[in-house]
Amino acid sequence: MRYKVIVNYDGTNFNGFQRQKDYRSVEAEIESVLEKMHKEKIRIIGAGRTDKGVHALGQVFHFDSDLKITEMGLKKGMNSLLPPDIYVVDVKKTSEDFHARYSAKSKIYRYKINVNEYNPLEVNYVYQLNRELDINKMIKAATMFKGEHNFYNFCGYQENIDKNFVRIINSIEIRKDDKYVTIEIEGNGFIRYMVRMIVAILVEIGLGKKDESFIKERLDSNIKNRSNYKVPGNGLYLVKIDY
Amino acid sequence: MRYKVIVNYDGTNFNGFQRQKDYRSVEAEIESVLEKMHKEKIRIIGAGRTDKGVHALGQVFHFDSDLKITEMGLKKGMNSLLPPDIYVVDVKKTSEDFHARYSAKSKIYRYKINVNEYNPLEVNYVYQLNRELDINKMIKAATMFKGEHNFYNFCGYQENIDKNFVRIINSIEIRKDDKYVTIEIEGNGFIRYMVRMIVAILVEIGLGKKDESFIKERLDSNIKNRSNYKVPGNGLYLVKIDY
Repeated sequence: MRYKVIVNYDGTNFNGFQRQKDYRSVEAEIESVLEKMHKEKIRIIGAGRTDKGVHALGQVFHFDSDLKITEMGLKKGMNSLLPPDIYVVDVKKTSEDFHARYSAKSKIYRYKINVNEYNPLEVNYVYQLNRELDINKMIKAATMFKGEHNFYNFCGYQENIDKNFVRIINSIEIRKDDKYVTIEIEGNGFIRYMVRMIVAILVEIGLGKKDESFIKERLDSNIKNRSNYKVPGNGLYLVKIDY
Repeated sequence: MRYKVIVNYDGTNFNGFQRQKDYRSVEAEIESVLEKMHKEKIRIIGAGRTDKGVHALGQVFHFDSDLKITEMGLKKGMNSLLPPDIYVVDVKKTSEDFHARYSAKSKIYRYKINVNEYNPLEVNYVYQLNRELDINKMIKAATMFKGEHNFYNFCGYQENIDKNFVRIINSIEIRKDDKYVTIEIEGNGFIRYMVRMIVAILVEIGLGKKDESFIKERLDSNIKNRSNYKVPGNGLYLVKIDY
C-alpha cells in the first residue's frame, strides 16, 4: 500500500530535507521512525529537497508499507516517535502510481522579511533585513518572472545534474504590513536556490540598489551571467504542494 | 550617569536572566558586552529574573557608566556586540535614584497556548497544549485572582528568602482566536513561578479537570497546600514593566 504524507518541520536544526552523511536531515529522521515501526528499512520519496534552515508547512512524501494499520494509526505512530521539530499532519492511502515528486503539479513557497526593527525572537524564522522596502517597485519587477522562463541565471544549478532551466511561475504575491514583507511564489517547479535568488533580487530592487534591467539582462538567457544574490534560508517556507 | 535599558531576548538558549555558574544567562552576556565597552567590570540590575526558556519583549535593567557616549551610541554599541538572541531596544539616561527593580510599579506577562494541532515550528515559543479550552470558565475563574491576595500557595517561593506573599493583580485578560489562547496578567509584582502556576490552574479549569474550589481552598491561605501545576516556561513572555 502506498501512502501520501504531509509533514511540517522546523528547519532550524536540520541540514536540509535530504539525507546526508554526518548531518541531521528530515529524511533520515523520518526513515528511522518508519524503520522502527516496520522492523525493516523503508525508503521515503520527498516532493523535493529543502535546504539547511528552510521550514516546511506542507512538505509531501510517499512510501510503501505492508503494515496492517489505519491512516490515523500511522499518523499517531509516527508522531509519537518523531522528534519535536517534525510533525506529520496527514497520512492518506494513495494509488500505486502516485509519486510525491513526479506527480506534483505546483508548489507554493513563502518568504518572510522583517522590515521593522531587529527581533531576537524570530532570528530563525524571518529574514532580519530591518530596512524599509519599496513594495511597489518589487511588485512591478516581480511580474517579469511570471509565466514560462529560463531561470539559468537565477538558480544554484548543479552543472552535471540540471539540464532544463525552464520553469513556469504562476504567481508572485507580495504583501506588506507594519512589520513584515511576505512574498509568496507559486510555480510548477523550482530549481535549487531559485526562490531565494528571485526574492534576493526583488529585495535589491525594493532597496533601490538594483533596477529591472538586472532581471532583463539575465532572465531567459543561456549566457552565463548568474545573479550572485541569495536571501538566507531561515525566512523560507515550503507551504503547499498541489497534485 | 545612570542608564535605563529595555532589552528583548529569546529565552530558548538561556538558563534564565540571572547569572549562574556554568550556564548561559542573559545577565552574564550583557555584562560581558558592557565590560568590553568600558574596559572594566560593569554590574547591571535587572527588573526581575526570568526563568529558563522564558522570553522577554520588554525586560528592563539599569547600570552606571562614565563613558562619553550618546544613548544611541550605547544602544548601537551594545547591539553590535550582543549575541543574536539578545537585542537592546532602548537606552535612556535616568536619574541616580532610578532602580530597575525597586522603582517598578507594575509588570505585564503574556502566556501563549496552542489549542489547535501541534506546530513543530513554535515549540520554543508557544505551549503546545493542543486541546480545546473552555475560555468562559477560565475568564470567570481568573477574576478570583484579581486584586490583592496572598499567593503563598501559588508560587515556587524559596523558603529562606521570600517572606511576603501578598501581591496585587490589576488585570487578567484571556483571549482566544482559532489557534491560540493568550493570557495577559498585569500586577505590581510576581513571585517566582506565580504566573505559570496561575496559568496552569486556569488551564486545568479550562480543560474541565478542576473547578474554582481548587483556587478557593488555596488563595489567601497561609496554610501550606501548594498547587503543583505549572505550565512550561517556553510560552511565557515578560512584556512590559511600568515605572
